[in-house]
Amino acid sequence: MTRKNMRNKTAEEITADVLRTFENTADPRLKQVMQSLVKHLHAFVEDVRPTTQEWLDALEFLKDTGKYCDDTRNEFILLCDTLGVSILIDLINNGKAEGATESTLLGPVHRFGAPELPHGADIAAGSQDGIPTVVKCRVLDLGRNPVADALIDVWQANGDGLYDSQIPELDGKMDCRGRFRSDEGGRFFFRTVRPKFYSVPVDGSVGRMLRAVNRHSMRPSHIHFMINANGYESVTTHIFDANDSHLEGGDTTFAVKQSLIRPFVLRDKPDDETKRMGIDSAYCLVDLEFVLQAS
Amino acid sequence: MTRKNMRNKTAEEITADVLRTFENTADPRLKQVMQSLVKHLHAFVEDVRPTTQEWLDALEFLKDTGKYCDDTRNEFILLCDTLGVSILIDLINNGKAEGATESTLLGPVHRFGAPELPHGADIAAGSQDGIPTVVKCRVLDLGRNPVADALIDVWQANGDGLYDSQIPELDGKMDCRGRFRSDEGGRFFFRTVRPKFYSVPVDGSVGRMLRAVNRHSMRPSHIHFMINANGYESVTTHIFDANDSHLEGGDTTFAVKQSLIRPFVLRDKPDDETKRMGIDSAYCLVDLEFVLQAS
Repeated sequence: MTRKNMRNKTAEEITADVLRTFENTADPRLKQVMQSLVKHLHAFVEDVRPTTQEWLDALEFLKDTGKYCDDTRNEFILLCDTLGVSILIDLINNGKAEGATESTLLGPVHRFGAPELPHGADIAAGSQDGIPTVVKCRVLDLGRNPVADALIDVWQANGDGLYDSQIPELDGKMDCRGRFRSDEGGRFFFRTVRPKFYSVPVDGSVGRMLRAVNRHSMRPSHIHFMINANGYESVTTHIFDANDSHLEGGDTTFAVKQSLIRPFVLRDKPDDETKRMGIDSAYCLVDLEFVLQAS
Repeated sequence: MTRKNMRNKTAEEITADVLRTFENTADPRLKQVMQSLVKHLHAFVEDVRPTTQEWLDALEFLKDTGKYCDDTRNEFILLCDTLGVSILIDLINNGKAEGATESTLLGPVHRFGAPELPHGADIAAGSQDGIPTVVKCRVLDLGRNPVADALIDVWQANGDGLYDSQIPELDGKMDCRGRFRSDEGGRFFFRTVRPKFYSVPVDGSVGRMLRAVNRHSMRPSHIHFMINANGYESVTTHIFDANDSHLEGGDTTFAVKQSLIRPFVLRDKPDDETKRMGIDSAYCLVDLEFVLQAS
């Protein structure tokens, strides 16, 4: 008896039935999204044809993912990051003109209200470990004219690969964060420590998924920048340390773009300007240009 | 500046990057499922091109869905039910031969260990409300020969549309559940109350979704059956009350199939057999055949 019962609805008929129930949605955009979701979800199910047990396992996985969410953590974001959905959303919403600095993920650790600091300030004053690093930046427009008075939000992991929010001793205090304003020449610069690569949290369901598929959980060393200037499209991005060997294995959140990989150059001795920033040892120098497109 | 930055990866390149990270999955089935998930998830995102805010809203919805899960409830199952995924999984795994009784959803309220009862027993002895109902059944094979010694699990909502697990007063005790064995003629019969239509739980994120898309949350009146017999494929199904007006508006879980709609016939007076079952008033008679296919 292999012939299918003809009274059984086909998969296509089931999908059509489900789509029809969204026809009365008042919001046309919601209707479009829900109907597209149903189509793609059903196509996925038809493609892999899960056994009942596989489907129950998937439902347990989703339930488990929910368990790792709280006020400060949404494990579903990490799931989207590791499935490449977040970077796709970034591409769709933040694609930049040719020549403009590319965007990448905001990530979950941005905090509002970082202190606005003078040029040359040390944003990592609370950090013990890590190579002292000087980051010199220019903000330009597409015609390479300086963009003055841009507000630049900077944040990064410290020399141990930890964000301030992951260090209980800091008790909520900010570290490795700061805001700067570009001068008439579009310039700003600051002192920090060379950030270290790190692992995304793997104590939850996403960690379990990554282990099951034999994937690593690492993010290569990077510094986050968010740049806002009147008359220009804002850009949220990272700069990746070209010397980090973890670039080779790939970023588990797929945030790396070729144009965002920049040299962190080791210098044996500080020059006078660097000495004025309190560095009297070998250090790392990073020279960056950010190019904004008009809004 | 509308021309896209050529250094930006395209959506296709991003998807290819993500698929590649699953190449080292040891379990070939898991690899297939994850790669298909990525393809379909990315296709969905490309199709609707969510704004950043829409995507954050979707992530909050998933987090919220997780909040409504506990030891006895998985809101993701209800989400799959209302998106037609559960019935699709049922079709994929439980499609039956022509002439055999069609399957439908197991649902979340099945309980193991219902009491095995003699023919004619009242499974709804704990229920106050509802029309007394006699259900007479035959279990047959595809050649219409009786199937003896089949074990039939029966469960249903009571005359108020509630399952025993939803009635605090029952304190975990079973009601409107029972197990029966078919006799030499393939027959079994029992007394119950006519079940009432009901709403799936709408206090959670799925309820919010249904309201947002202007969909109802009702399930038409039905009785669940799960039939197991040596040498036959087991079948898990419902029988729907043909007189329930809620059939017209559709089942929010898409579980109704034409062949599973059966008359619940009102009788003015009990006959002698019905009187022996303790019914001395008007009642409802349901006559059913279940046809099993050989395994």
